[in-house]
Amino acid sequence: MPYVNVKVTKDGVTKEQKEEIIRGVTNLLRDILGKNPQTTVVVIDEVETDNWGIGGETVTIRRAREKKP
Amino acid sequence: MPYVNVKVTKDGVTKEQKEEIIRGVTNLLRDILGKNPQTTVVVIDEVETDNWGIGGETVTIRRAREKKP
Amino acid sequence: MPYVNVKVTKDGVTKEQKEEIIRGVTNLLRDILGKNPQTTVVVIDEVETDNWGIGGETVTIRRAREKKP
Amino acid sequence: MPYVNVKVTKDGVTKEQKEEIIRGVTNLLRDILGKNPQTTVVVIDEVETDNWGIGGETVTIRRAREKKP
Amino acid sequence: MPYVNVKVTKDGVTKEQKEEIIRGVTNLLRDILGKNPQTTVVVIDEVETDNWGIGGETVTIRRAREKKP
Amino acid sequence: MPYVNVKVTKDGVTKEQKEEIIRGVTNLLRDILGKNPQTTVVVIDEVETDNWGIGGETVTIRRAREKKP
Repeated sequence: MPYVNVKVTKDGVTKEQKEEIIRGVTNLLRDILGKNPQTTVVVIDEVETDNWGIGGETVTIRRAREKKP
Repeated sequence: MPYVNVKVTKDGVTKEQKEEIIRGVTNLLRDILGKNPQTTVVVIDEVETDNWGIGGETVTIRRAREKKP
Repeated sequence: MPYVNVKVTKDGVTKEQKEEIIRGVTNLLRDILGKNPQTTVVVIDEVETDNWGIGGETVTIRRAREKKP
Repeated sequence: MPYVNVKVTKDGVTKEQKEEIIRGVTNLLRDILGKNPQTTVVVIDEVETDNWGIGGETVTIRRAREKKP
Repeated sequence: MPYVNVKVTKDGVTKEQKEEIIRGVTNLLRDILGKNPQTTVVVIDEVETDNWGIGGETVTIRRAREKKP
Repeated sequence: MPYVNVKVTKDGVTKEQKEEIIRGVTNLLRDILGKNPQTTVVVIDEVETDNWGIGGETVTIRRAREKKP
């Protein structure tokens, strides 16, 4: 019955990668806690880099700076 | 003062259905807990079927399989 | 497959009220969107009034003030 | 290490405003709780006014009514 | 930079199981999406069975019924 | 109408600090986005250090290690 919410930046995560995340997290909770995969729900949110902040700045700005020589 | 978050798959939920969900949940919390509708907040998230997993697979895959004869 | 999170202040919500909220929200999503109750998940969070803010102040402070003559 | 989720209606919040929110919330948690900005995460969700309810109705309907003379 | 929230029923999950979940989810996002473990945040919420609903009833009631002969 | 959820580790955050966080976040959204404080909701979750992971380990373990000479 677990519910898992995965938030990542919107960076072209593919359909296949989403399937792997969902399968992986579901199996993990079955293996560690014995949770029934049939009622395990996983929801993935993809967040624009303008809307994600870390270290007091957006990921957009942080990445732009890291690219500069 | 309650806050309610409703997550459903993105399947063409109409404006009217959203209004009904918001009204229904708000009235429910008024009737059961005596909560003031004026400060009850309801937020609906519509999630792509690729991003929603149950039973270890995405809803996209699950639905495709169920449609096969 | 919907997932619903209901947050209310921790005010002695009874077991029976929680059952009513869960039943009510589940039926609502069945009636409005045709969602299958068997895979509808509802999670209720009870939040201390010190940890809930509205209007820039905690609910604890707001209620104390409203009680004063 | 704090995690902050800010939900607002989707109303043309600019890139600069998002930067200000992220900087402001991060500084607030540093100043009040001594939290390290480097590991403070802020995620902003912009929600369509059709999907946001208060007072039992959507923000879309509420705003339309308020505009009427 | 991912943020993952895992909600499970409060059933005596041990310290070691929590460590395994956190390590497992973090490694999964590193392996599938190349995410940096140093900035991956995982928060586990343990929810009372009275507060968790599925199939329109609380987990408390569901489990009591399943135990009956 | 914003809704803000602040998650921090459970470390003896005082009543006064919670009040400051709620006031600070509410004022921030008023100043940056012109949001009405009267309908701004802030919910603070305090999470046990065993339940919070970063860098693939719990905060409990991380802190124990950092204290060692």
